[in-house]
Amino acid sequence: MAVEVSNKILSIPSTTISVANVRQANGAELDAIARYRRMTNYLAAAQIYLKGNVLLREPLKPEHIKDRLLGHWGTSPGINLVYAHLNHLITRYALDMFLVTGPGHGAPANLANLYLEGSLHDYYPDLTFDETGLHTFVRSFSWPGGFPSHLYPGVPGTIHEGGELGYALATAFGAAMDNPDLIVACIVGDGEAETGPTATAWHSYKFIHPAQSGAVLPILHLNGYKISNPTIYGTMSDEELLHLFTGYGYHIQFVQGDEHSDLDAQLYAAMDWAYHEIRRIQGAARSGQPIEKPRWPVIIMRTPKGMTGIKELDGEPIEGSFRSHQVPVEDVKTNPEHLKLVEQWLRSYHIEELFDEKGSPLLDILQQCPTGKLRMGSNPHAFGGRIRQPLVLPSIHQFAVQVKHGVGPEHGGVNASNMEQLAKYLTEVVRRNPHNFHIFSPDELQSNKLGAVLDVAPREYEWPVPPHNEKVAAKGGRVIEVLSEHDCQAWLQGYLLTGRNGLFPSYEAFLNIVISMMDQFAKFLKLSLEIPWRLPISSLNYLETSTLWRQEHNGFSHQSPGFINSVLNKKAAVSRVYLPPDANCLISTVDHCLHSTNYVNLVIANKPPMPQWLSMDEAIAHCRAGASIWHWASSDDGVNPDVVLVGIGDNPMLEVMAAAQILRDEMPQMRVRVINVTDLLVLEKDTEHPHGLDEEMFDALFTPDKPVLINFHGYVSAVKQLLFGRRHVQRFHINGYNEEGTTTTPFDMNVRNKTDRYNLIMQAIRLAAVNNPRVAARASERVHHYEYVLVDHRRYIQDNGVDPQEVTNWKWHG
Amino acid sequence: MAVEVSNKILSIPSTTISVANVRQANGAELDAIARYRRMTNYLAAAQIYLKGNVLLREPLKPEHIKDRLLGHWGTSPGINLVYAHLNHLITRYALDMFLVTGPGHGAPANLANLYLEGSLHDYYPDLTFDETGLHTFVRSFSWPGGFPSHLYPGVPGTIHEGGELGYALATAFGAAMDNPDLIVACIVGDGEAETGPTATAWHSYKFIHPAQSGAVLPILHLNGYKISNPTIYGTMSDEELLHLFTGYGYHIQFVQGDEHSDLDAQLYAAMDWAYHEIRRIQGAARSGQPIEKPRWPVIIMRTPKGMTGIKELDGEPIEGSFRSHQVPVEDVKTNPEHLKLVEQWLRSYHIEELFDEKGSPLLDILQQCPTGKLRMGSNPHAFGGRIRQPLVLPSIHQFAVQVKHGVGPEHGGVNASNMEQLAKYLTEVVRRNPHNFHIFSPDELQSNKLGAVLDVAPREYEWPVPPHNEKVAAKGGRVIEVLSEHDCQAWLQGYLLTGRNGLFPSYEAFLNIVISMMDQFAKFLKLSLEIPWRLPISSLNYLETSTLWRQEHNGFSHQSPGFINSVLNKKAAVSRVYLPPDANCLISTVDHCLHSTNYVNLVIANKPPMPQWLSMDEAIAHCRAGASIWHWASSDDGVNPDVVLVGIGDNPMLEVMAAAQILRDEMPQMRVRVINVTDLLVLEKDTEHPHGLDEEMFDALFTPDKPVLINFHGYVSAVKQLLFGRRHVQRFHINGYNEEGTTTTPFDMNVRNKTDRYNLIMQAIRLAAVNNPRVAARASERVHHYEYVLVDHRRYIQDNGVDPQEVTNWKWHG
Repeated sequence: MAVEVSNKILSIPSTTISVANVRQANGAELDAIARYRRMTNYLAAAQIYLKGNVLLREPLKPEHIKDRLLGHWGTSPGINLVYAHLNHLITRYALDMFLVTGPGHGAPANLANLYLEGSLHDYYPDLTFDETGLHTFVRSFSWPGGFPSHLYPGVPGTIHEGGELGYALATAFGAAMDNPDLIVACIVGDGEAETGPTATAWHSYKFIHPAQSGAVLPILHLNGYKISNPTIYGTMSDEELLHLFTGYGYHIQFVQGDEHSDLDAQLYAAMDWAYHEIRRIQGAARSGQPIEKPRWPVIIMRTPKGMTGIKELDGEPIEGSFRSHQVPVEDVKTNPEHLKLVEQWLRSYHIEELFDEKGSPLLDILQQCPTGKLRMGSNPHAFGGRIRQPLVLPSIHQFAVQVKHGVGPEHGGVNASNMEQLAKYLTEVVRRNPHNFHIFSPDELQSNKLGAVLDVAPREYEWPVPPHNEKVAAKGGRVIEVLSEHDCQAWLQGYLLTGRNGLFPSYEAFLNIVISMMDQFAKFLKLSLEIPWRLPISSLNYLETSTLWRQEHNGFSHQSPGFINSVLNKKAAVSRVYLPPDANCLISTVDHCLHSTNYVNLVIANKPPMPQWLSMDEAIAHCRAGASIWHWASSDDGVNPDVVLVGIGDNPMLEVMAAAQILRDEMPQMRVRVINVTDLLVLEKDTEHPHGLDEEMFDALFTPDKPVLINFHGYVSAVKQLLFGRRHVQRFHINGYNEEGTTTTPFDMNVRNKTDRYNLIMQAIRLAAVNNPRVAARASERVHHYEYVLVDHRRYIQDNGVDPQEVTNWKWHG
Repeated sequence: MAVEVSNKILSIPSTTISVANVRQANGAELDAIARYRRMTNYLAAAQIYLKGNVLLREPLKPEHIKDRLLGHWGTSPGINLVYAHLNHLITRYALDMFLVTGPGHGAPANLANLYLEGSLHDYYPDLTFDETGLHTFVRSFSWPGGFPSHLYPGVPGTIHEGGELGYALATAFGAAMDNPDLIVACIVGDGEAETGPTATAWHSYKFIHPAQSGAVLPILHLNGYKISNPTIYGTMSDEELLHLFTGYGYHIQFVQGDEHSDLDAQLYAAMDWAYHEIRRIQGAARSGQPIEKPRWPVIIMRTPKGMTGIKELDGEPIEGSFRSHQVPVEDVKTNPEHLKLVEQWLRSYHIEELFDEKGSPLLDILQQCPTGKLRMGSNPHAFGGRIRQPLVLPSIHQFAVQVKHGVGPEHGGVNASNMEQLAKYLTEVVRRNPHNFHIFSPDELQSNKLGAVLDVAPREYEWPVPPHNEKVAAKGGRVIEVLSEHDCQAWLQGYLLTGRNGLFPSYEAFLNIVISMMDQFAKFLKLSLEIPWRLPISSLNYLETSTLWRQEHNGFSHQSPGFINSVLNKKAAVSRVYLPPDANCLISTVDHCLHSTNYVNLVIANKPPMPQWLSMDEAIAHCRAGASIWHWASSDDGVNPDVVLVGIGDNPMLEVMAAAQILRDEMPQMRVRVINVTDLLVLEKDTEHPHGLDEEMFDALFTPDKPVLINFHGYVSAVKQLLFGRRHVQRFHINGYNEEGTTTTPFDMNVRNKTDRYNLIMQAIRLAAVNNPRVAARASERVHHYEYVLVDHRRYIQDNGVDPQEVTNWKWHG
């Protein structure tokens, strides 16, 4: 019943260098590191407190203290400890390495190191090694116009802000993918470790090919406390941690102690061991002898929160307590005792031994940093825009769907699955870009009819899979599927920010899971645009499918188009939302997105077969325009419609087309203009969004004054907010998803939300009838008729469990 | 350097009954369970396929097959296996138990069991034990108007839909809290196990007090596959799993095999063991001898996906493969071979041995189910509305803030922190409701100035904490803090849906992490409203604080008011958004929310001290109205304003008040009406939302035609969509958060987003000047002046790092 417990995978990792040996052989180096850390710890504390007297040349006075004390001290000494040792590791082995800092709010530590290594100076020339530069540097932290209290794109070497916790580890893994020589060090705090996204991201190594990809060196830093609480991981015993991380698949090395123990020797040895473990696993794989289930190294470091800081304040412990999380002593400007405490603390680093007279750090300090591109703040991978590898993309014409069938109409004669057609294009993208393109998907590739791409390369998975799954999951694939939208998003972010390209297909409803991450990424992009040395990276491309209109069978929980609204709230320079009406438009749109940079592109399309409207040439022109009148589907002779019908989204457009067809057949006296909007942002004013139509073009499409009936894919709120600034908005009538419909059928989903052809027709007739005797004469009779049609249909659906053939077999006949 | 590996916590759990003994002593019971499972497996398969011939009395023909095949077979046999054994465990020990099913898409299995135990019949009287009832039952699955393919509120015993994966486990823990006798069984699939929220939810036991709360019995069901992929957990070895779950703190029992092994005996023994382990841990705690770090039981069950189903189809394995995930054979209506295969499968259960002639299940089958309230579909806890324990709430008057100070003005004379004031009220709520109220917070209680509630009861935490943290975290507290918004939300959902009450305070920006969960919960509520036997549960109350306007120091990542938009997209019957302008309004609002049922209440307020505007009586009246004219702050004599200034949110209202004051002092010829909107939904039309103002009231507030300048807390998109249907919307000018501002100061944040007093003044003057010579005469001179003021302020901020005293010390002087 219960398995035998094998202890073999729990064996203690062998270290290449023992701590005792390190102590013996590298005493001078350890001393130098300790001196360097005195400097970075001082600089971190100084940034939080000082706006003057940065060399402590005179007694500390209230006027030297910033008026507003901001910044997080607690995590800073840990970051400084790790940074110093990573520097030495890099220098020792000439490593291609940079750092993803989970606790991005420990920016004072990162900034201290970046100042000393000179990476800051490369981008902020006034941050020189002299008293003026030092003063500017120290004061600029959390100062208007200066550095924020968290990491941000303006800090060189940063691909992860670490403001919202949870995503550092998976981001680091994304950066390591397809970068075989790179090691991404990643600090995960014990606060962040509590988040769900981090808890599952530990499994990421199961998706890392040790020959094709680089490695992540995770350093789990347990300082025991969050903002005002002990942490889960901090209260776990070493045994518990050892089991947990062994279960995750890691080899664990603990580093623990405080400033008075041999922390530096321990961490030196642990990093050396980790480096050699990484190279051993990679070496085996690269020499054709891959290790099954390689146990990659993780370092678990326990040190007191706010180590080297103030020990106690008014009888309460500060160091080693949550009380050192942020600014450990607040009222220094008004409380002389507390000012003295802070002064003692700052002087405890003895900076007079670390700076020369001019305020420049002494040479031996500066020599602790690597040089040139070996500096973590200058690692080329962390400047993704500069090394961006654009995709090699095929001509889309070869994937064009023929929309005319035999003697049928010019448009709409052929049914096809938009996703299946797109898959053909994507297959070629995967084939042509074997090293810089990944598809990340939450186990929905096949279900979203994109499975054809697996013919080129299987799913990447490193753990052994059962027989009969070789084509499904294998080592070295280009598609990565995990049932975690968080992982998909963070891996993709890491991959993009290091200069590569990707696509994130997902069920529409479940992209909502990463709204917050999209939001954070869009903010990162927005700030990057303001920083001249951040060159454009490839866009983040979402492909939303299995949309609510075809999720009637999976039920209410699978119906949620809210991601659109969330993207719309981001800066206009960054946000793009596309709802292509057919396969050719979809292919043209995705092709555009894969070419593009610095956007969050949201593309929405469905998977079941549906009528194909536009030839590829028409599709390209339509997508370029963003919206156009489909004259061939309109009955207004191009000038004076009674009503304008607008479809936005493939399902809503199908219903608009059916409505237009029925009206043409049964109400020939009504003049209907048919419009498709494929680029949602054309609706917004041109002063608000670069894709917004100017007034003239807007009126040319929608007329200046006629009633417009919009059939929209998502929540009507999205269209309302976009149209708000337009003139005469009251003539716009918007149908969309209204949170109605559980176990229904595709057509019934439309009926319940009033986006179906018959409700459209009735609405259109009523609108057209207002000023129009031609239409008014027959209006009530026709409305009555269509109401009956709907009743009949509902009865049919109830009896048969499927939509009536009149609906499912409907075809545009021109 | 590395710790010694202790093996002691890895010891094999002792079972109360060995598998061999079970086999020996309970042979007949095991046979009965196996027979019962034949029945439930048949019923699950039948629901997916059949619309006729449900007793298989004639050969299976295409017309017996549903026209649209929907439903998930793969997970169903596993749910049936667990359900059958839970039934026996319940009967054996008369347990208070129900089931949270992670794989809610396995609804055919749940429904089969609920049909047999009669819980379905209690609510759907036509689902009788005869051929007609059986036919209705089988056909109604995934049929328009019938049961959806996933669990939903219409299924008795359900508190978790399981459509969006990730939250089952934490929801189960929320249900167990403060229910000392309850055991919540929870099936977690290996797909769901990959999600981040589940990965961290395993730690939940660290927050469960074994005396005060009940227990969760997690069953991790590994069938090896997701939709079209092997799973991470399925590919992990027993050793890896043993380590992982030992690290999480569990005692593990494995159950593995297929239909031909002794699965029933294994699971019988495992459940018996788990039950006794739970009682042992609880017993120790309840007799005053609590076990430190108790290792609660978890069952890990490995069985083939789609066990007992079709073995192979066209040469591909189905059973034990991802190919059995959904409908294993699709084309049964058109492919006679495949129809035969399905018929063989259905007949393999030999239902002629399980039903009597009338189509009723035989008595021995029915006797496998518990009776009355012991049935899992009838457990009272799963009907939270019926057993809802409303809060005992204090009168809010005792917490009123005095708004008049000495000889100062009637309003705005006192500064106070809205959150600190609210904390006084909440402290009393906690005190009065020691068993049915929890605050769940992502480590932000103290930081959000609500820490005073800890004086009544500490934070709940079960693992040993270091010294000096006894007041911070202790066993049996009423506040639960974990750095996982996902956990907070799911725990709260489980707690509410079992009839209790709660509050979720959070940083504004990080509520976005659970947008998707809120969305799913709002959908659950919406459907519950349609089901007569779902009585109202207490509302889900969010308290958004540390809002973007005071997160300038934490930077851009901490500024995101998008949760508002997400709530607005939910059904009007469910969604409520409040932005109280001061502490008395905040207390009145929260009090209202804690009294309310069936809503998602979003309350937004800040924590730093700010002017207090309304007395408690005024606040109550204002909150009841949702919006009112503040005549005492207006200069329009109540009739004919030149411009209407509207504040929505406490920070925006402060700026509106400052603008009104300055205009009154410096532009006395301008008639300004000042309005505060505290209930955002008043803006929507009354036809769209029950809180929407009718046209008359709307015009009475905002005038029918005057320019209105709205200063809004969040994205302008939220206000635009609400105002869309109003007449003359072009007269509304909306300022709000425009994604601007990183390292700035509170006031500068406003300036960057143009929501500050001076920009308001300038806009107001320009608007008022249009038709108004009185104003126009001085307009350009004044605008010029305020532009200069802003330039001066910016310079001051740049030089000093803080806002000018003119702003920070500003006071309303009436």
